[in-house]
Amino acid sequence: MKKIINEPNNVVTEMLQGFVKANPQLVYFDGAEVVAKKEKENKVGLVSGGGSGHEPAHAGYVGKGMLDAAVAGNVFASPSPDRVLKGIQEANTGKGVLLIIKNYSGDIMNFDMAKELAEMEDIRVESVVVKDDVAVEDSTHSTGRRGIAGTVFVHKIAGAKAVEDAELDEVKRVAEKTIANVRSMGMAMAPCVLPGVGKPGFALDENEIEIGMGIHGEPGVERTNIKTAEELANILCGKILEDFDFANSEVALMINGLGATPLMELFILNNEVQKVLSEKNISVYKSFVGNYMTSLEMAGCSVTLLKLDDELKKLLDVPCNTPALKVW
Amino acid sequence: MKKIINEPNNVVTEMLQGFVKANPQLVYFDGAEVVAKKEKENKVGLVSGGGSGHEPAHAGYVGKGMLDAAVAGNVFASPSPDRVLKGIQEANTGKGVLLIIKNYSGDIMNFDMAKELAEMEDIRVESVVVKDDVAVEDSTHSTGRRGIAGTVFVHKIAGAKAVEDAELDEVKRVAEKTIANVRSMGMAMAPCVLPGVGKPGFALDENEIEIGMGIHGEPGVERTNIKTAEELANILCGKILEDFDFANSEVALMINGLGATPLMELFILNNEVQKVLSEKNISVYKSFVGNYMTSLEMAGCSVTLLKLDDELKKLLDVPCNTPALKVW
Repeated sequence: MKKIINEPNNVVTEMLQGFVKANPQLVYFDGAEVVAKKEKENKVGLVSGGGSGHEPAHAGYVGKGMLDAAVAGNVFASPSPDRVLKGIQEANTGKGVLLIIKNYSGDIMNFDMAKELAEMEDIRVESVVVKDDVAVEDSTHSTGRRGIAGTVFVHKIAGAKAVEDAELDEVKRVAEKTIANVRSMGMAMAPCVLPGVGKPGFALDENEIEIGMGIHGEPGVERTNIKTAEELANILCGKILEDFDFANSEVALMINGLGATPLMELFILNNEVQKVLSEKNISVYKSFVGNYMTSLEMAGCSVTLLKLDDELKKLLDVPCNTPALKVW
Repeated sequence: MKKIINEPNNVVTEMLQGFVKANPQLVYFDGAEVVAKKEKENKVGLVSGGGSGHEPAHAGYVGKGMLDAAVAGNVFASPSPDRVLKGIQEANTGKGVLLIIKNYSGDIMNFDMAKELAEMEDIRVESVVVKDDVAVEDSTHSTGRRGIAGTVFVHKIAGAKAVEDAELDEVKRVAEKTIANVRSMGMAMAPCVLPGVGKPGFALDENEIEIGMGIHGEPGVERTNIKTAEELANILCGKILEDFDFANSEVALMINGLGATPLMELFILNNEVQKVLSEKNISVYKSFVGNYMTSLEMAGCSVTLLKLDDELKKLLDVPCNTPALKVW
């Protein structure tokens, strides 16, 4: 295993220490594995989190206009309820807290328990569950669809609403609207190695890829030979467009790298995806190309479409300033 | 070869098409492989470029407060003089143009020829050459030290000076000052595959790394077994600190990923590098962690230190808004 690490069991703590050294406007709570803003804003708090290994998610989205706190579990493992509770406490300024949860059984359970613990402290907490991955209906770690890169759009939209000084119910409403309108589909070309395990979680042959694989290496829908970028754009968009009616609409598009895929390939895929969308009369309002929700050094990508209306467009354009996403 | 591409010979064109689709404030000149701002600013123009495969360099640094045009060659191949000339023409608004060249023989030759061509069109052109890599004195593609990730700091500082409406000589002076004060050192863990070649450019054993390898896979200084992050921080910083006196100074720090190295590992390395610097009484004014100057899907990293004075600090903090670097 070739990794730039020290002790495999310490990777999350050391990563977050290094993360706040690069982002001194944020604070890291050791033990709770929570990253939060140093300067709190008097508004509805937003908390997300989940297993580590998906960097820049989620600590990278803490900052003005997005999250107030992010809670990290161990690599690919859900954070415990007490860690999530700490995140809620840090995000709360008296106006309540919205939890943005990716749909994995462990996260649902632990975030729900943390919600109950916070409510016992008289903190008002609401939650939404992101399940944007159209690949499979149930999966190794989820009942129902998995939450993947579309989660970043939920952070962005809900975060923008919260800085408008909206009430918790309103912030939850736009988060739910985003979730209802967002769909993703991915593919993997090469596995990643968990630091504590030391060997790949799955194997693919030299020219083999897996369509619809999850961000923890969960099974997808098909193993097949490597395709051209044009064919991949058609396969990934095809599955998304089958699932939801994006025709004649404006969308936000995310071309997300899983960790080891060069930007060159993501831009080539963006070129092809935009051709497919253009043929379907789907207009791209804004596109985001890069590593937003990764899977350590997995090679592969995902495509995410968010159907926009005037409200979502406006919220998408609200400035935000976080380590991993800056809009202004 | 598993890559998200179509025809291997078209990767640069298709990548830049996809790049401007994601960044509609920029314009792509097909054939010249130049990316420039749509809205020109009346100031000294800044142009950089070089072989492709180092994304987001250099097109990702075109925008307010950094470059005015970037010129792309084929993968790992210098752009021809006519392409560079087109970049100069696009960047010029009558106040002259500064070329920021990485020290590779092909780039030096082609940018110099383009400078002569532009001067025949009465465009005033000056150039600076970045040679920040302390690993080796001469290399496969260079006489003297190679230019690597430190180039991004030169774009940033010179770009900030240019938006102050400084004259060409003044912009060149701060670029030269940055070059004089910046040092980098890298290491590679796994090779990349050039799309037109289809197989890795070099091989490393299962636990082997190469210290000081260049961003085109050029030889470094030593092959050795994989080290801990702490050991790597000591090795990379050690070589930099031997070369230049950073003691008791303030620095800008860049922890750069070569393409396939997860952010988790870069943050862990940042944590260790900052410990080393702290021990040497070197204070980190600002740190940048991410993929700034890559080598396709090569695994590995580089560390860059820029010694700051008041002028450089001020210029580093000037807002910029480019696809790959946003400061405000």
